[in-house]
Amino acid sequence: MFSIALLHFPVYDKNRQVVTTAVTNLDIHDIARAARTFGADRYYIVTPVAEQQKLVQKVTDHWQSGWGSTYNPKRKQALDIVQIVPSLKAAVEDITARSGRVPKIVVTGASERSASLSLSDRELSELVSNGDQPFLLLFGTGWGMTEEVFDSADFVLEPIKGFDDYNHLSVRSAVSIYLDRLFGR
Amino acid sequence: MFSIALLHFPVYDKNRQVVTTAVTNLDIHDIARAARTFGADRYYIVTPVAEQQKLVQKVTDHWQSGWGSTYNPKRKQALDIVQIVPSLKAAVEDITARSGRVPKIVVTGASERSASLSLSDRELSELVSNGDQPFLLLFGTGWGMTEEVFDSADFVLEPIKGFDDYNHLSVRSAVSIYLDRLFGR
Repeated sequence: MFSIALLHFPVYDKNRQVVTTAVTNLDIHDIARAARTFGADRYYIVTPVAEQQKLVQKVTDHWQSGWGSTYNPKRKQALDIVQIVPSLKAAVEDITARSGRVPKIVVTGASERSASLSLSDRELSELVSNGDQPFLLLFGTGWGMTEEVFDSADFVLEPIKGFDDYNHLSVRSAVSIYLDRLFGR
Repeated sequence: MFSIALLHFPVYDKNRQVVTTAVTNLDIHDIARAARTFGADRYYIVTPVAEQQKLVQKVTDHWQSGWGSTYNPKRKQALDIVQIVPSLKAAVEDITARSGRVPKIVVTGASERSASLSLSDRELSELVSNGDQPFLLLFGTGWGMTEEVFDSADFVLEPIKGFDDYNHLSVRSAVSIYLDRLFGR
């Protein structure tokens, strides 16, 4: 069992200041559709900002019970797994309550991290499919999750490598690729 | 050598009518960043609508030579490979002029297609890396490319499969996953 979380706080901005980023409509939809396609239990949207939480709720309500639910039922199915939480801690507590076990936290990032905690896609995929242990995959917005988030993780997934040293995928692309590598086919 | 094209015409709408869809800002950015990351020669945005072509040009100009080019140079690098064309035929002609060879057309789609033309990711990846033959991967918007586009293709890539029968990825997710499968690592 695995879930994913998209962190809007704490993340860095361009100048490495810790900020809260805004939730975007396509981050809700694209990532919910990818998460649903690849079998995530929950897609947590993490923001401490009450107004942003309301915005997400409004979007999900529209597609889940409003006009959108009959216009496009596939969106409803994807948004059924979306859950808004104020913090990473709240996501961890929710998974613990749902599954009876504390999830292992997995981070992803463009830079190489300490090898001691690193996992290949295959290793994580086997861990997830072989046991009752829940996993929570974290993805950052802005210019990436803070060092504190990385330091608190149990595992770090190897970064996505492209053709040369250019590697500036959107978070929507990165989530999609990781979920396919881990749980596709 | 490979390029990708995002077709806004001819594609189906929800009711299987052939329509021209609108270009969206994130389709320009997300797909350009993924295409650049995985080494595409060109990312063709295909629309016959002059106003839409101008819109794309305005966005790419902003990031390539306007204020955006110094604010975020990584965007510039991604948008350098974007090319607006009025039709699929124009994209094919451009590749032919650039490479001296007519590209082979590869389509992707959620549904299973005739096995005679089908290729696995690995087979296509080997074909692209082993020769001088250029390839053009097509992606549709709306509810997918028309049957005529599929029928005119040289090869069909196997669909992305998820956890169960739910498979409703955004085109941004689908492009990212295919490019990673074909050209990642």
